[in-house]
Amino acid sequence: MLIVQKYGGTSVGNLERIENVARRVVKAKEEGNDLVVVVSAMSGETNKLIEYAHHFSKTPSRREMDMLLSSGERVTASLLAIALQEMGLPAVALTGRQAGIRTDDTHTYARIESIRTETIEQELKKGKIVIVAGFQGINRHGEVTTLGRGGSDLSAVALAGALKADACEIYSDVDGVYTTDPRIEPKAKKLDTISYDEMLELSSLGAKVLQNRSVELAKKMGVKIIAKSSFSDGPGTMITEEDETMEEVVVSGIALDKNQARVSLRDVADRPGIAAEIFNKLAQEQINVDMIIQNASKEGTTNLGFTVPHSELERAKEVIGSFGGEFGSADYDEEVCKVSIVGVGMKSHSGIAAKAFSTMAQNNINIEMISTSEIKISMIIDEKYGELAVRVLHDAYELDK
Amino acid sequence: MLIVQKYGGTSVGNLERIENVARRVVKAKEEGNDLVVVVSAMSGETNKLIEYAHHFSKTPSRREMDMLLSSGERVTASLLAIALQEMGLPAVALTGRQAGIRTDDTHTYARIESIRTETIEQELKKGKIVIVAGFQGINRHGEVTTLGRGGSDLSAVALAGALKADACEIYSDVDGVYTTDPRIEPKAKKLDTISYDEMLELSSLGAKVLQNRSVELAKKMGVKIIAKSSFSDGPGTMITEEDETMEEVVVSGIALDKNQARVSLRDVADRPGIAAEIFNKLAQEQINVDMIIQNASKEGTTNLGFTVPHSELERAKEVIGSFGGEFGSADYDEEVCKVSIVGVGMKSHSGIAAKAFSTMAQNNINIEMISTSEIKISMIIDEKYGELAVRVLHDAYELDK
Repeated sequence: MLIVQKYGGTSVGNLERIENVARRVVKAKEEGNDLVVVVSAMSGETNKLIEYAHHFSKTPSRREMDMLLSSGERVTASLLAIALQEMGLPAVALTGRQAGIRTDDTHTYARIESIRTETIEQELKKGKIVIVAGFQGINRHGEVTTLGRGGSDLSAVALAGALKADACEIYSDVDGVYTTDPRIEPKAKKLDTISYDEMLELSSLGAKVLQNRSVELAKKMGVKIIAKSSFSDGPGTMITEEDETMEEVVVSGIALDKNQARVSLRDVADRPGIAAEIFNKLAQEQINVDMIIQNASKEGTTNLGFTVPHSELERAKEVIGSFGGEFGSADYDEEVCKVSIVGVGMKSHSGIAAKAFSTMAQNNINIEMISTSEIKISMIIDEKYGELAVRVLHDAYELDK
Repeated sequence: MLIVQKYGGTSVGNLERIENVARRVVKAKEEGNDLVVVVSAMSGETNKLIEYAHHFSKTPSRREMDMLLSSGERVTASLLAIALQEMGLPAVALTGRQAGIRTDDTHTYARIESIRTETIEQELKKGKIVIVAGFQGINRHGEVTTLGRGGSDLSAVALAGALKADACEIYSDVDGVYTTDPRIEPKAKKLDTISYDEMLELSSLGAKVLQNRSVELAKKMGVKIIAKSSFSDGPGTMITEEDETMEEVVVSGIALDKNQARVSLRDVADRPGIAAEIFNKLAQEQINVDMIIQNASKEGTTNLGFTVPHSELERAKEVIGSFGGEFGSADYDEEVCKVSIVGVGMKSHSGIAAKAFSTMAQNNINIEMISTSEIKISMIIDEKYGELAVRVLHDAYELDK
């Protein structure tokens, strides 16, 4: 079997842990597998580098940030290769560029355009374990790009897809996907399988096991993901196409996303295209708008609300500022969070939303914004009620059963 | 003027110091110069990474070491570019690869083969300050290589040569080249100018201002080097062709090199080519042999002695081991050092060597090995007498006058 393994920052957080990862790789190799191992930076390293950059600038150039941040994964990749070589296994460390990962030009949030697998395939043919620095690639000008937070997952899934690997194992410090964050609700249960779509909602909604873009890509490329812990030997959670057994489950999990800031624009001129202009400008600035709601207000104007990640609020404010005159006032609230209920079964069951709203009401939690899809219901609420909301919803849908 | 500046590890040792370097760069730019700035890793970073690697292996693969060690300079380069951009100056950070630095395949000690200056020249034409990650390049397979300890000096000199820069300013924490190490002899004096050849001897002999390969390259390419401190505004020391005024100085400086280990082979079979075989093998293993002496011993055998850097002694032992049977015994002494007297005037003055030997005798310092060239006399002595020897020689040649 050809397996792509990916070890996250905590799994390679210090030298002992890198050694632990090396032993896991050796074991998988001894079981007769061909291995491509994608690694993140040692935990804390990327944040340290970001702090360094912010010492000099609040808005450091994205091109230079990519050169800065891509260094952490190179360190881990070379150390892991050295550890494996010392254990007597042939291993070779490759940077994103050497692994053939070509991206577009969007620095700090680049998209993978293609993977030239020749080098990796040659090294595998020689019997080598190929270690790849995650999170990075190069654009057509040969400049270093990075794939955004959690981008190493993306590297792993894209490599698994391009190499037609039999599985993509994503290792972290949690042993799978839970019905909700066990630190918030100790009764949370690990799921054996979950569909791409559910995982997509859970990951984009703050369940930090897997980055959403990776799940999207896995779905598109048909890559079977197994989320596992590098600190234990459990079977993990398999993320794959939904099957019949899944249909029976109505709600799979509850997610909490605290990385939300609310932007409200009042009395927006109600002329055609104004919303499009605002969101186009936000998109150009690479600001990820999440929930969007629009309500009619006074005659000829409208109220427009949306959420963005905390880190992008400053830039969002700049964009909003450039539209001065087009609306009455803008206000911002960083102290909100998003609670979401996710489940493929939801689409064919009624009453799921009603139960969510009544549970919130019973607990005196005010809902500021609501958005729903076929498989999820999201609510924006005051940040301080986030954990409480997760627990009461987990109970209401009997996820501990 | 086009100036290449190079800032060493101490000069960029923390964020405040990087900011200090940015201010210096701004000043040089405001004086109307075009600038290419080569940076080292923040001091301590490279050693930290080496320690990491040694946690896993005593002899880590050199290919992976290069990928590991090249990360430090990338961090500094991107941070400096970010700092300059924040100060309102256009700056762009380039890796060794992006700066067009092509090397041979000798990982961890690669030689620069060529520099493709197109990218740098394009960026300079756009008015940008070009920041280059020192110490690194790529080989013809696209693999990362590093240039060995102090390799950032080499990057700077090579870039200055290829770009035909007007000067190459090498910044460190010392304000120039001294007659000897001022920490050993407080009466040491800063030199205003020194010839390439003298500097070559001084740097290869342990005066740590400039790496010897850089001086060799500067001489070959006719690059005028100015060694300066990044912490003060002194004029530094200019390293250039020797001129007439230099002729008058007999001895320029005294150097101490504590990074020496002595290898002695006794009763080496006196067959033709045995020495060549040993030194060829050492060279293949990239072990830098420094002094070599050979004495006749018993009939049909000879004694062979040489010195290597401490870090290469283990590998030297392995090479020696592979010649078992070709000699009676091998012994190793790590507790030696090399004291050297350097000066272009030496070649046309007699009695310089005699004064050195008598000074050592007067102070009861035993000389284990001697080697001389046109402009230097080197002596291997017991490590514990190193500093004393420097002081008494500095006095004997009246270098404080």
